[in-house]
Amino acid sequence: MRHIVGVDVGGTNVVVGTVTEDGHRALGLTKERTVVADGPDAVVAQIAQMVSQSMATARSSLGTSPLDVAGVGIGSPGPLDTRTGVVLLTPNLGWRDFPLRDRVRDAVGLPATLDNDANCAIFGEWWRGAARDANVVVGLTIGTGIGGGIVFDGKIFHGASDIAGEIGHMTIDSTGRRCRCGNYGCLEAYASGTAIAERAVEGVTAGASTTLDRYVNGELGAVTAQVVYDAARDGDEYALEVIHDTARFLGTGVANLINIFNPEIVVICGGVTAAGDRLFTPLRAEVARRAFRPAVERCRIVPGALAGTAGVYGAAAVFKVQTWGAA
Amino acid sequence: MRHIVGVDVGGTNVVVGTVTEDGHRALGLTKERTVVADGPDAVVAQIAQMVSQSMATARSSLGTSPLDVAGVGIGSPGPLDTRTGVVLLTPNLGWRDFPLRDRVRDAVGLPATLDNDANCAIFGEWWRGAARDANVVVGLTIGTGIGGGIVFDGKIFHGASDIAGEIGHMTIDSTGRRCRCGNYGCLEAYASGTAIAERAVEGVTAGASTTLDRYVNGELGAVTAQVVYDAARDGDEYALEVIHDTARFLGTGVANLINIFNPEIVVICGGVTAAGDRLFTPLRAEVARRAFRPAVERCRIVPGALAGTAGVYGAAAVFKVQTWGAA
Repeated sequence: MRHIVGVDVGGTNVVVGTVTEDGHRALGLTKERTVVADGPDAVVAQIAQMVSQSMATARSSLGTSPLDVAGVGIGSPGPLDTRTGVVLLTPNLGWRDFPLRDRVRDAVGLPATLDNDANCAIFGEWWRGAARDANVVVGLTIGTGIGGGIVFDGKIFHGASDIAGEIGHMTIDSTGRRCRCGNYGCLEAYASGTAIAERAVEGVTAGASTTLDRYVNGELGAVTAQVVYDAARDGDEYALEVIHDTARFLGTGVANLINIFNPEIVVICGGVTAAGDRLFTPLRAEVARRAFRPAVERCRIVPGALAGTAGVYGAAAVFKVQTWGAA
Repeated sequence: MRHIVGVDVGGTNVVVGTVTEDGHRALGLTKERTVVADGPDAVVAQIAQMVSQSMATARSSLGTSPLDVAGVGIGSPGPLDTRTGVVLLTPNLGWRDFPLRDRVRDAVGLPATLDNDANCAIFGEWWRGAARDANVVVGLTIGTGIGGGIVFDGKIFHGASDIAGEIGHMTIDSTGRRCRCGNYGCLEAYASGTAIAERAVEGVTAGASTTLDRYVNGELGAVTAQVVYDAARDGDEYALEVIHDTARFLGTGVANLINIFNPEIVVICGGVTAAGDRLFTPLRAEVARRAFRPAVERCRIVPGALAGTAGVYGAAAVFKVQTWGAA
């Protein structure tokens, strides 16, 4: 069977895996801290080395049969141009007009494709994860920021110039919190991992009764969304309230997506989903309060099924679609 | 040349026209108040009579050549089922589970199709109006409420169950004005024709310095969006402020659409566009403040070009697509 190497380049980590053509397995999964500070050439070298390593591991796991690798699919933060393979600008990585696709192709010696990281994650969930067999898929990837991906009839929807899917920058409160993007009241300003931690700390500073500070030895700067979840799991009422607020903000955003897209499924990916039902139950309730009932009844709202590897699967699926026409 | 009769059924008016297959002309345009109070059977009879009348006028305008009519395309408020041709529920018309398509087909004796009225209006703008030749089109129809239509690659996007495009019910202020739909802070609650009039009257009641009351002989219940526009045209500062606020609300909604869809064009249809640059200049400025610059630069924001007939053209185009495969 043919294989495709999927590469998920992020501001924090690079994840690489060698995926079977049918998407049933990812072999030789490997993850490293992105060498951001060393510049884009160093990251290309890192990717090339990780691709070699992943293929070597995959090859040895196959025993005597040869490993047939058709190419490399890359997912990267954007905005980027999927046609030319150029990353136009990545605030997290500090790149501008960098021809990532062709640089990786030359370093690895295999054909390559490039798409947006959030698009790849949601496409991975469509191909092999929580959104399998759905024709109208909208997804969010929640981490430092909130990315989005839209998949119709087995194809990523790119819009007019590859920018479609910036769901995190939907205004849900027109005079609300300032977002990194400059706008006020973006969903991302309330419900990203960063925003969850920020909101939690704001409450503590304002005198909330909570044990949250004990989880970080009084260093409030060290509070993350995960810390909030840990405290909530241990019964901290304030932390639970922060998660409940998050669910309402996310629910508002998801309700908008349901009214606009009438999707079969909304997939929510990222560490934020670790809160499980504590997050999803009030989120679904908020959606039901806000969106049109027949559209709500038609739509499942679920966490992603490919934690940590959705981007690798999706990048490989993009290569497959661009090279052979369908995933 | 073949013709298609386009029927645009609204809560206020029915508009009918006989459209040439190439969409270049609508002959025998006719418009009547919808006989809502008499129930759906009466509206079907009204439609059948208007279709006959439109075809007769079209026939006489063609001189000696015969009129070849392939069928009837109907646009109606929804939600509805495009596959079965059944209107599921229309608050404005008071219908429930009414098989409008087949009832019109039987009354007229021609094949018929059915789609949502806002979808038809935006599809008409794509086929023959302001959005010609664009592959990624998002449109709003602003009247009593705010409807939406999404056209990708020459096809209406329907979502999983024909509900997609409820753009008016996107929350832009999660704790904002109550909407008719039950939700808080919908775009429609701020920027529909109804909402513009309501906001204007609220300000007058609160003591705004304005001449607005003179346009309605002191009867504030008679204020409409058009009255606000008339006062603004005559230099009333308060009326201008109401339009400016409308532009900011609409701009917030359009910015969301641009971040989500990365469209080539956003078309805004309806009487509200009569405000012209007074509305569109601050609207575009608000969009530029809120949305991602490369997506904003890629997108035109324009009024519809087919005032009053977009729905007729679009309903005919839907018939064409469903019957012959492409418009």
